[in-house]
Amino acid sequence: MDYAKESLRLHGEWKGKIEVVATVPVETKDDLSLAYTPGVAQPCLEIQKDVDKSYELTRRHNMCLVVTDGTAVLGLGDIGPEAGMPVMEGKCVLFKAFGDVDAFPLCIKSKDVDEIVNTIYLISGSFGGVNLEDIAAPRCFEIEKKLKEKCDIPIFHDDQHGTAIITLAGLTNALKVVGKKKEEIRVVMNGAGAAAISIARLLLKSGVKHITLCDRHGAIYEGRKEGMNPIKDEMALVTNLEKKAGSLADMLVGADVFIGVSAPGVVTTEMVKTMNQDAIVFACANPTPEIFPDDAKAGGARVVSTGRSDYPNQINNVLAFPGVFRGAFDVRARDINDEMKLAAAYALANLISDEELSEDYIIPRAFDKRVGPAVAKAVAQAARDTGVARL
Amino acid sequence: MDYAKESLRLHGEWKGKIEVVATVPVETKDDLSLAYTPGVAQPCLEIQKDVDKSYELTRRHNMCLVVTDGTAVLGLGDIGPEAGMPVMEGKCVLFKAFGDVDAFPLCIKSKDVDEIVNTIYLISGSFGGVNLEDIAAPRCFEIEKKLKEKCDIPIFHDDQHGTAIITLAGLTNALKVVGKKKEEIRVVMNGAGAAAISIARLLLKSGVKHITLCDRHGAIYEGRKEGMNPIKDEMALVTNLEKKAGSLADMLVGADVFIGVSAPGVVTTEMVKTMNQDAIVFACANPTPEIFPDDAKAGGARVVSTGRSDYPNQINNVLAFPGVFRGAFDVRARDINDEMKLAAAYALANLISDEELSEDYIIPRAFDKRVGPAVAKAVAQAARDTGVARL
Repeated sequence: MDYAKESLRLHGEWKGKIEVVATVPVETKDDLSLAYTPGVAQPCLEIQKDVDKSYELTRRHNMCLVVTDGTAVLGLGDIGPEAGMPVMEGKCVLFKAFGDVDAFPLCIKSKDVDEIVNTIYLISGSFGGVNLEDIAAPRCFEIEKKLKEKCDIPIFHDDQHGTAIITLAGLTNALKVVGKKKEEIRVVMNGAGAAAISIARLLLKSGVKHITLCDRHGAIYEGRKEGMNPIKDEMALVTNLEKKAGSLADMLVGADVFIGVSAPGVVTTEMVKTMNQDAIVFACANPTPEIFPDDAKAGGARVVSTGRSDYPNQINNVLAFPGVFRGAFDVRARDINDEMKLAAAYALANLISDEELSEDYIIPRAFDKRVGPAVAKAVAQAARDTGVARL
Repeated sequence: MDYAKESLRLHGEWKGKIEVVATVPVETKDDLSLAYTPGVAQPCLEIQKDVDKSYELTRRHNMCLVVTDGTAVLGLGDIGPEAGMPVMEGKCVLFKAFGDVDAFPLCIKSKDVDEIVNTIYLISGSFGGVNLEDIAAPRCFEIEKKLKEKCDIPIFHDDQHGTAIITLAGLTNALKVVGKKKEEIRVVMNGAGAAAISIARLLLKSGVKHITLCDRHGAIYEGRKEGMNPIKDEMALVTNLEKKAGSLADMLVGADVFIGVSAPGVVTTEMVKTMNQDAIVFACANPTPEIFPDDAKAGGARVVSTGRSDYPNQINNVLAFPGVFRGAFDVRARDINDEMKLAAAYALANLISDEELSEDYIIPRAFDKRVGPAVAKAVAQAARDTGVARL
């Protein structure tokens, strides 16, 4: 199927992929007097007395804001806020279908960090949580950080954390397949954008000790001069501890794991051949990966994962964000913290039993009905365990 | 029924009165590839090329923002943004039920005019129109004016313009009942808030010549010193042309029409007795009117209207806003201008035939199924006639 052509045709037919519907009747005078004036004054007054009642008397408890500035939509770059809307609506569809979360899409006409933060903050009282979407790095880091400081509801940037959760889930199972330990492996990553940074952080948090991040200038290390920024400086303190300089190819020599969230075709079969035995290759550039699975296998990789649905082991964010928000909403969490992300990753990994586990099945499939509930349960429990649950 | 108690109980059961639902399937890999990545890139690119395509490829064409700062919620005053949400959700329910308009509620945590304007402007690309709600005067005038300058979508403050439309509709028919002409009547209004100002403006626009506005200091006239503000100054230039000073009671002597959007019980039977023969009394303070219908009739009033559903001739905003936005959306109007408001009012008035028209039936009833379509049709035509329709 020509997805581009057919999708455009369908979007023209659909004229929107979401709808706001009423869940209460307004067919009689009494209906009106109860759902609206004069009766509605009473729930208003209850919320005025105690703002937390907004979770009990309005839809806030289940309402997630899906918001973008349109600067990093899919792989299309900065296409503007209105043009990001089909993706945002699509995300809302997935939230509902996979997590029973009501999600509403907004596109903000600004590229100014403080203006974006303030806009979201000012409307945050209408939502139970915020999912940031397709905002370019490094702006996305600052926006997320500032929002987390200002708001008392979960702020989650799916391009970062969703991807990190699935990657960690996949890596956990891939290591089982090859019989290696997190603490001992050497991970080389290519890309230093939103997803890469978040993956690196979550892997470190999970117990991985040796990670080297590469960008177009090669390995990132403390003290490197060219192409650095505050986030890379920060990451240089906790990765590449031996402060090695060199190209991606140089770094891959002797590595156990490659994780690419970068550009098509930057890894060759020859490069994979220089990796350690039983290499694990996650080539997540989409739709064209850093290296295609067959080429990686030809270089000796034992487990290969991509972002594509036509190869095994797809890293697909729909495995994480619906369940993550479902779990956070179920316990009215005030944050989605690292422990909740780790719990989501392990819950995903654990859905595959030791018997089922294989080189071609390390990550549950997108339509596996067990995924959403399993992730939600684990996330809710982690929220309770870390004291961010309000229920 | 104890509406307050029962409404609170129901709100606790409902846990929200709206829901965001998906209108497209995501049950297979192909579904996902069409509603989301990779197919969704194509509609995004089309909108990037031509922002107007956002009306064809997303839900924008039917999506109205219902937004408040929580400063004038019902008669409750400044109860805060979150506490306004039950009313906003209720409004969204009415938009859907009476106009098939998708409406989404937001409460803004700010009382600063420019901050509110900027917040709404920055998200306006996600909507086809904006309904301002329960924002205190005089701030609401400035917010509306600035938004109309910045945005190319309809901005409508229902507390002002919705009320004005129904009042004009009712007055038009009341004048038919008593056989008086718009151009000749003397109208005295009490109240100088958002609704009163908008009613006065629309009546003037419709051809009424003689209006006197009163506030707690009595008649407003050009040059009055106490209790004035920029809006009252502006209104003083086009009302009370004889610059009479005096109390509301003084002004009512010889008046043909009283319109109150003020406070309970400020008009007495004795005051109505001093009005002209066949007096018309619109006592819209809610739930307790300026004068109850029986008392007004005892003073000689021939047609009496209130905001209450338990008396005839209810001024109920649900008669206007759903149809107004339906009509504006149907032709993708870039504004809701005075001509569209007048058209809405006359369409409402005309729904009652000369045979049906009576002292107790000057305004269609809230559940009259003809109302929404009739208002929408008239509004759409007026948008075309005045060049603000884009379809």
